[in-house]
Amino acid sequence: MGAAISSDMIGDHLERLRERRPLVHNITNFVVMNWTANVLLALGASPAMVHAPEEVEEFTAISAALVVNIGTLDHSWVASMSLAARKAVATGIPWVLDPVGAGATALRTRTTLDLLALAPNVLRGNAGEIMAVAGAAGHMPKGVDATVASAHAVDSARNLGRASSAVIAVTGAVDYVIGADRGIALAGGSPMSQLVTGTGCAATACVGAFLGIERDALLATVSALAVLKAAAAMAAPLAQGPGSFQTALLDALHRVSPDDLARHVAIEAV
Amino acid sequence: MGAAISSDMIGDHLERLRERRPLVHNITNFVVMNWTANVLLALGASPAMVHAPEEVEEFTAISAALVVNIGTLDHSWVASMSLAARKAVATGIPWVLDPVGAGATALRTRTTLDLLALAPNVLRGNAGEIMAVAGAAGHMPKGVDATVASAHAVDSARNLGRASSAVIAVTGAVDYVIGADRGIALAGGSPMSQLVTGTGCAATACVGAFLGIERDALLATVSALAVLKAAAAMAAPLAQGPGSFQTALLDALHRVSPDDLARHVAIEAV
Amino acid sequence: MGAAISSDMIGDHLERLRERRPLVHNITNFVVMNWTANVLLALGASPAMVHAPEEVEEFTAISAALVVNIGTLDHSWVASMSLAARKAVATGIPWVLDPVGAGATALRTRTTLDLLALAPNVLRGNAGEIMAVAGAAGHMPKGVDATVASAHAVDSARNLGRASSAVIAVTGAVDYVIGADRGIALAGGSPMSQLVTGTGCAATACVGAFLGIERDALLATVSALAVLKAAAAMAAPLAQGPGSFQTALLDALHRVSPDDLARHVAIEAV
Repeated sequence: MGAAISSDMIGDHLERLRERRPLVHNITNFVVMNWTANVLLALGASPAMVHAPEEVEEFTAISAALVVNIGTLDHSWVASMSLAARKAVATGIPWVLDPVGAGATALRTRTTLDLLALAPNVLRGNAGEIMAVAGAAGHMPKGVDATVASAHAVDSARNLGRASSAVIAVTGAVDYVIGADRGIALAGGSPMSQLVTGTGCAATACVGAFLGIERDALLATVSALAVLKAAAAMAAPLAQGPGSFQTALLDALHRVSPDDLARHVAIEAV
Repeated sequence: MGAAISSDMIGDHLERLRERRPLVHNITNFVVMNWTANVLLALGASPAMVHAPEEVEEFTAISAALVVNIGTLDHSWVASMSLAARKAVATGIPWVLDPVGAGATALRTRTTLDLLALAPNVLRGNAGEIMAVAGAAGHMPKGVDATVASAHAVDSARNLGRASSAVIAVTGAVDYVIGADRGIALAGGSPMSQLVTGTGCAATACVGAFLGIERDALLATVSALAVLKAAAAMAAPLAQGPGSFQTALLDALHRVSPDDLARHVAIEAV
Repeated sequence: MGAAISSDMIGDHLERLRERRPLVHNITNFVVMNWTANVLLALGASPAMVHAPEEVEEFTAISAALVVNIGTLDHSWVASMSLAARKAVATGIPWVLDPVGAGATALRTRTTLDLLALAPNVLRGNAGEIMAVAGAAGHMPKGVDATVASAHAVDSARNLGRASSAVIAVTGAVDYVIGADRGIALAGGSPMSQLVTGTGCAATACVGAFLGIERDALLATVSALAVLKAAAAMAAPLAQGPGSFQTALLDALHRVSPDDLARHVAIEAV
């Protein structure tokens, strides 16, 4: 059922990421561009945000991974996302899709399905988004934050994983990473993450960074989510509220160690 | 002359907001999207930024309130703002307009007048913007920050309020909220707010959040501005400069209590 | 060879800037808009982000300086950049160009050359960008961050300065400011600056602010870079990581004094 997943393996991924500083091409939303870039820098990756149709393919081709996030989509951005995704697949560059707000509007659901057909290596969303994409329910997420416990979306994730070739990640208080032949649950982190905008988007960006140094998409995804959960757990006791939590989270991402991973994140098969 | 305004009433509004977590649809500027989303989350609301013409009406219709901010407008965004505002009015969803930079360019003044004709429940600006919109003077604000004391714009606000159906809020060292039959002044806060970009935009977003749980637009506006003033007063003594003030402001927004409101904000009729 | 450059001169510039609060018109990228605005406010300038083609010329004409940054360019933004730059030159308003990612894609290199032909007063980039623009090498920068020591780009900067009328600034661990008849090196700052997105963009914005109060472009550029280096040196010992460094940098920018400049930055002719 694949390689054993331990904090040592994740620590090795993290060390490799910090050494290689993978260039991560982000086509993402206006709300989180600065935050995502700072998360990727704190983690040890090299972020770039590039969206013009004239250059996205050229830029994807020199990147280690591509992140596509539909948070503030419009038709011209969707065209660029599609160009970049096709280029990524054609050149063997891994990519991850974040279907922000899927289910909330027809445009978001349709765009997600269109992009999912371009074979992302990973799809990461909250429970409401994953359930909406899977068509598991007529479920309508409230805004773009998770209001359904991630566990409720595991069946949707399995169905979606079988119908596509993507690893499906459902994040929340517990994160689930569902691959073709195995599933992993990660517990830990902090409920304060819900008080900062773009922690889900940051998770997707970190998945992109780990895809840039590890081609097993399930392992890369588990590593990314484990590092974020550890950093959140380290940041929470230092925070007086959502503002200082955000600051402490960036600080913690920069210093997460294999020991921290072992201490703060519980990983098990599901 | 309407309900009594006390810190208890504002505290009740705040409690209701934190319970209901109103979904606030923002069509706002690139500079403050992240900041505004974090302010709304810290306050207890559920923010979403959605601007594509294909989906704004659909999204407005599922939201508790709409925030329109013209800070980095261009023609395609103005079209979306107009679509969303019309939908809000048609479906009884309250909305607030922030005329960033009105008076600085012809496009901003004209766009503000066009949107004002779509009957926002509240118009919030700094003194220069409100005076420009009221045509009270050929006054040209310096950049997009307030350089005129808010008191100078009260007459403009009264004129503007009479000509439109909107509650007019002029924010500054003292905030004025001018309704059809009453006016309220709020004193308190911190001058450090001027050192952080988007504190005015954050005020508008908070007005949107309170409109989502309280249909009396004047009371909702007073509550929003009072909570921000209290949070700023709580944050200032913890800050070493504008960076740490911004962080402390988000922390304070998350923990403002009715006692804090009574302690830090002075409210009187004008 | 021009006026002596001392921390006293830079302190005088800084005092003048804080008194006059120059309005700085930014056409910049989505990633750094909030950060850049907060940097300019902390420094003492008055930032505005305005990009619609219908209003950029009008806004440039009322500004003290213009900042053009191609970080998240697309064709419509490039058109606005060009309109604003032409207006700046026609009306004697100084402007600075930041060629983010020049060399990484054909669009970026071509756009930079097109804008450079519109005679910016200053061009500021990292070593890879300046070398790419100078055609000094087929060098391809990794992402948009500096991966080549700034000293390697000094010859490119001299060539570029001779071919254009612009002062060329190459920033890095050591900053180089190359004018027609003199060159200045600035040492100091902190390596933590590389862990925060947009510190280069912030440098460009600060150059714009100083151009708004000092027409000698080389002196204005040296002042801007010196103030940032001093603030970074002051912030680093207060930081536990990139998040708290970012916060401390804004705090420090707001309180930098002439003494701090003398203490933290070494300036010499090159």
